[in-house]
Amino acid sequence: MLPDPSERAALLRRREHLARALGGAPAVMASSRPRPRNYAADQFPFRAASHFLYLFGLAAPDGMGVYDGEAWTLYLPDPGPDDALWDGEVPGFAEVSERTGCPVRSRSALPEALARAAKARAVATLPTPDLETCADLAALLGREVRPGRLLPQDVPLADAMVALRLRHDDVAQAQLRRAAEATTPAHLAGMRATRPGVLEAVVRAAMEAEFVSRDVRPAYQPIVTVHGEVLHNLKYHHVLREGDLLLADVGGESPGGFACDVTRTWPVTGRFSTTQRELYEVVLCAQKASIAAVRPGVRYRDVHLAAHREMARGLVALGILHGDPEELVVDGLTALLFPHGIGHLLGLDVHDMEDLGDRAGYAPGRERSKEFGHRYLRLDRDLEPGMAVTIEPGLYRVPAILGDARLTARAGDRLDRAVLERYSDVRGIRIEDDVLVTAEGHEVLTAAIPKEASDVEAAVMAGR
Amino acid sequence: MLPDPSERAALLRRREHLARALGGAPAVMASSRPRPRNYAADQFPFRAASHFLYLFGLAAPDGMGVYDGEAWTLYLPDPGPDDALWDGEVPGFAEVSERTGCPVRSRSALPEALARAAKARAVATLPTPDLETCADLAALLGREVRPGRLLPQDVPLADAMVALRLRHDDVAQAQLRRAAEATTPAHLAGMRATRPGVLEAVVRAAMEAEFVSRDVRPAYQPIVTVHGEVLHNLKYHHVLREGDLLLADVGGESPGGFACDVTRTWPVTGRFSTTQRELYEVVLCAQKASIAAVRPGVRYRDVHLAAHREMARGLVALGILHGDPEELVVDGLTALLFPHGIGHLLGLDVHDMEDLGDRAGYAPGRERSKEFGHRYLRLDRDLEPGMAVTIEPGLYRVPAILGDARLTARAGDRLDRAVLERYSDVRGIRIEDDVLVTAEGHEVLTAAIPKEASDVEAAVMAGR
Repeated sequence: MLPDPSERAALLRRREHLARALGGAPAVMASSRPRPRNYAADQFPFRAASHFLYLFGLAAPDGMGVYDGEAWTLYLPDPGPDDALWDGEVPGFAEVSERTGCPVRSRSALPEALARAAKARAVATLPTPDLETCADLAALLGREVRPGRLLPQDVPLADAMVALRLRHDDVAQAQLRRAAEATTPAHLAGMRATRPGVLEAVVRAAMEAEFVSRDVRPAYQPIVTVHGEVLHNLKYHHVLREGDLLLADVGGESPGGFACDVTRTWPVTGRFSTTQRELYEVVLCAQKASIAAVRPGVRYRDVHLAAHREMARGLVALGILHGDPEELVVDGLTALLFPHGIGHLLGLDVHDMEDLGDRAGYAPGRERSKEFGHRYLRLDRDLEPGMAVTIEPGLYRVPAILGDARLTARAGDRLDRAVLERYSDVRGIRIEDDVLVTAEGHEVLTAAIPKEASDVEAAVMAGR
Repeated sequence: MLPDPSERAALLRRREHLARALGGAPAVMASSRPRPRNYAADQFPFRAASHFLYLFGLAAPDGMGVYDGEAWTLYLPDPGPDDALWDGEVPGFAEVSERTGCPVRSRSALPEALARAAKARAVATLPTPDLETCADLAALLGREVRPGRLLPQDVPLADAMVALRLRHDDVAQAQLRRAAEATTPAHLAGMRATRPGVLEAVVRAAMEAEFVSRDVRPAYQPIVTVHGEVLHNLKYHHVLREGDLLLADVGGESPGGFACDVTRTWPVTGRFSTTQRELYEVVLCAQKASIAAVRPGVRYRDVHLAAHREMARGLVALGILHGDPEELVVDGLTALLFPHGIGHLLGLDVHDMEDLGDRAGYAPGRERSKEFGHRYLRLDRDLEPGMAVTIEPGLYRVPAILGDARLTARAGDRLDRAVLERYSDVRGIRIEDDVLVTAEGHEVLTAAIPKEASDVEAAVMAGR
């Protein structure tokens, strides 16, 4: 719940940077209330709002950090009379203050402090994912607070948070590394647990057990499926069969709340078929080409297009597509098989700062494409040192796409369905790593997880 | 997501009962929206509101069931254009209608249908745990909808739901049994995984893996702790040490959303010390005496008091308390060591229908005690066949209680602290089972999970 003492200086720096960017304008940043699952006392595991976590490193419910134009103060609920019985001791205000480097006061003093701060200028805030805290903020500030909506005074705050969180400082990078370290054994355990006849859920259980046993939480709902062609498939009830590929998109969350996001695809039998291996190599080549393109100054959309071009070359070589690779990309043929973006920002959120819409992902003046397959690209900035991104090309045979004449019309006979049909033992392949942009180029944070076809096979066979 | 075909008749019956109880008054019951964790697309696992689940058996986001005074109709969102790509095929309206036995229409038709239903009489509803759906309901009905608050027209609906859900029909009982069946291997795995030197999290991982591998979800956040004296301890970072007792309060949720709620306490070494075993037997005797008292017509508060009396006798026998057992209970001495209620209703919620406050747990005219240790009793009804309750006495040495002079003043020298000190290797013991009230008496749904001291020891040693 408390930040590590080693993070104190970074937390102070982050709040100082933000204060400077705000230029004396007051702001309040809220953590979150516990979210009820069935009823008030039956809750989902508590997760503080990412902006609050970034500034205070504190996973405490119902906290609010206030910048009054001069200094930061953290307001926390007073302990209730029965808290010690039901929830145990929580750190006192003095300890929280020491760890966060921020004065702490009782939340009961918050309304007065906010009223004082609001006298001169409108108080900025960022909506939290939970509506209850939004309602608290709305009541405190006498204004609307809703996820996805910013008032004019919030825009400089949002822009300042984006500017801060875009480039990860040393403490954030260390957290990203810890998330990646926790994710490696999960993928290895998933590969080892894979065998024909068991449920997808059995592999998921083996992967999650590696998180839970380390007191790590999944950063997002895991995808563990033999139907990788359903991109966000959250069902786990299929039996693994010989000849299936299993796609696992599973990442852990560091103690400080930073995400890892990794996908591997492996054969249930432990051996790729010839056709599976051919397509796997196409995706892997595209992934390596994209990763190789990651360095400061490169536009992320060009990394996305590099993957499409590499994929076009591979698909032409296999005879699935016909024509000039560059044209095939421009005409959207690769998007029929690779319909999502090459990746996204990674940080405290698995799609970092997606709560602010495209403000984080798209540089000012850039807009999402309207084209199928490119409109899902969540990031289009020039890369800078300290940014973390995912690189996650995939190849899928999606009936809803390949059967949609409006989408496939432009393909004509450049999409060779007879050849594609030979690859019917592939429904979906995705290979995803987390990549940190460095001054020199990049560092793959998730390099320890097998991805060469033969390494993946060996990892699966290690469970036999 | 869909109810089993075998549940159709029961769903029809439940809705028909409710309609009769409403006597022509219109009502709308909502499932829930997916709840965002970090941002809109990063969500907690979806859980439909329990009242909706009870009536439709359908774990579908954003559904609303409307009773217009004559018939039920289910309104579901139309599939979006990209759903098949991202989320896969969802069952069509015809299939949902077939399985639920209820006509299904597009949610776009809901406002008009509600307006029609509202013409004659105010539309009743029950708030969902998520505020977003509450806001939807408020907008649709032009009224306030907030968790924990009922308007006058909602009260008959709430009372009718309580009357229905209090006594579990065959389908509900079968779901409770499935939840119990999924929980047995989790506790056995937890016992087997226990050894000195590992984290509490390792035992939790072993328990949850049994759920996840069966595609079962925990019904509530698991408690797996060597600090059982913190009643809702949700931390898992302690190392298990020789001489520790581990308390695990862990239960699974059936496919239809029904809960199991079980606690066992076992020795980390696999052998209770003499002192641990003595207190364990006191709790076990109290638990057995309470379970024996469960039958139709018995007032649940008397089951609670039976546990206290049995515990008083045991503690007097050990010399921890001195005096007449009955008086010790009345004077609140047992509550110093057993400060919570003997249990609660169990059903689609682990504290069933706690969203309606004490309306479900307390019979009309009965109120919560103000006494320490009894004010946490969540249920005080006369037991009826079909009710499911937990029976979960515990013994805890809670510093916040035993060090509070206001609470211990009445004890005088009847609490023998010197003798209690000899039991310093016990911090918390709880033994909890789920008990169904039957016409003949009761059935323990969770009887397959070891609880005799020697059986528990054997189950732990099976992992060595």
